[in-house]
Amino acid sequence: MTKLALIRHGQSAWNLENRFTGWWDANLTAKGEAEAKASGKLLAETGADFRYAFTSLQTRAIRTLWLALTEMNRVWMPVEKDWHLNERHYGGLTGLDKAETAAKHGEEQVLVWRRSYDIPPPPLERASEFDLASDPRYRGLDIPDTESLKTTLERVLPYWEGAIAPKLTGGADVLIAAHGNSLRALVKHLFNVPDDMITEIEIPTGNPLLIDLDAKLKPTAVRYLDAARAKPLPALP
Amino acid sequence: MTKLALIRHGQSAWNLENRFTGWWDANLTAKGEAEAKASGKLLAETGADFRYAFTSLQTRAIRTLWLALTEMNRVWMPVEKDWHLNERHYGGLTGLDKAETAAKHGEEQVLVWRRSYDIPPPPLERASEFDLASDPRYRGLDIPDTESLKTTLERVLPYWEGAIAPKLTGGADVLIAAHGNSLRALVKHLFNVPDDMITEIEIPTGNPLLIDLDAKLKPTAVRYLDAARAKPLPALP
Repeated sequence: MTKLALIRHGQSAWNLENRFTGWWDANLTAKGEAEAKASGKLLAETGADFRYAFTSLQTRAIRTLWLALTEMNRVWMPVEKDWHLNERHYGGLTGLDKAETAAKHGEEQVLVWRRSYDIPPPPLERASEFDLASDPRYRGLDIPDTESLKTTLERVLPYWEGAIAPKLTGGADVLIAAHGNSLRALVKHLFNVPDDMITEIEIPTGNPLLIDLDAKLKPTAVRYLDAARAKPLPALP
Repeated sequence: MTKLALIRHGQSAWNLENRFTGWWDANLTAKGEAEAKASGKLLAETGADFRYAFTSLQTRAIRTLWLALTEMNRVWMPVEKDWHLNERHYGGLTGLDKAETAAKHGEEQVLVWRRSYDIPPPPLERASEFDLASDPRYRGLDIPDTESLKTTLERVLPYWEGAIAPKLTGGADVLIAAHGNSLRALVKHLFNVPDDMITEIEIPTGNPLLIDLDAKLKPTAVRYLDAARAKPLPALP
């Protein structure tokens, strides 16, 4: 049996401003840094022997992981960063705040984009100030111009199978520091959550989800490390 | 032509206390953190397109790299951590302060161990409180019990050849954040510094050494990024 911990990054500057962030590289706020440290303390208390860590190419997830590893006295762990763990790309909503989005598209439509499983927002225009084509971290990558949770899952899953799962089946405890929707995609896969129920699952910031996995990577137990601040748990499959 | 930057970690708790540190995992002080950030600012100003970073398994070097990458807005860079870049192991001197060491071994003998190329201090006893055999980061490794600069170089070099040099010959600019003696070993190799002159070369903390390399990884230019605080430079080979 091995352990998998999922850490959702804490508050970023754009969370604070209530803007759709997606692939935009908003940094952590001071509150977000504190949430990352809190995650690290909770993880250290588990006594789990984490051996590998995975994160996205986005600053807020990477720094969340680094701050947690510092609290865990495990900064020496191997860390693999990969765009497949990035947040869902919010397409043309990127950079808009809630009021702007509602004014532009209507509240009801926005709720559809936020809560539906497979309806992506309109694509980000290539001339947008939020386009990342020239960002050196994505060199050589055909960056998506929008994503639904479904298409997010479709790129998270091959990375899970190819890079992360082999470490767990090899017997190592693993940490993943990522984003609301890339983690949701993983939870959907691991717990067989139906399409129409997955948006109800939301890993809180500063409160890692710890999953026990059997040899076939089927979850046998699951809990939030800070039980007092727990959100709804996925049901065991 | 590619660029190689060597960053020496800033002040650690044991530097401050004047104790021989070696493989012991002393953390950065607040001054050490400030030096790391200063290194990052200087590196950002070069405009070099660093693509890969390498560091040791020791917290003070890893955190120096992380703080520098944060200043450079490049936390997404791939980072490989490896024990081959660790500080020289100070054997039985580990944990002793200068006064204790002089009282135990005599000042002259201590100078020999610090400044000679190939004379290691006495080995660390396995029962020592500074033994690292149970440290999970070194699982499976036969940890040395003492090292000279010569034996340090003998383990740095294969890692340079196998892991770092291929990135440079592939055309990528590379960062290495490491320690006084593992960096000294690299400089000795790159600049063909004679055995009796290498201990004169000392990369300052908070002031990276930037080396231009030709296609055969022969240095064609070298400078400290903060010229006002420069130390003696190795001569071009």
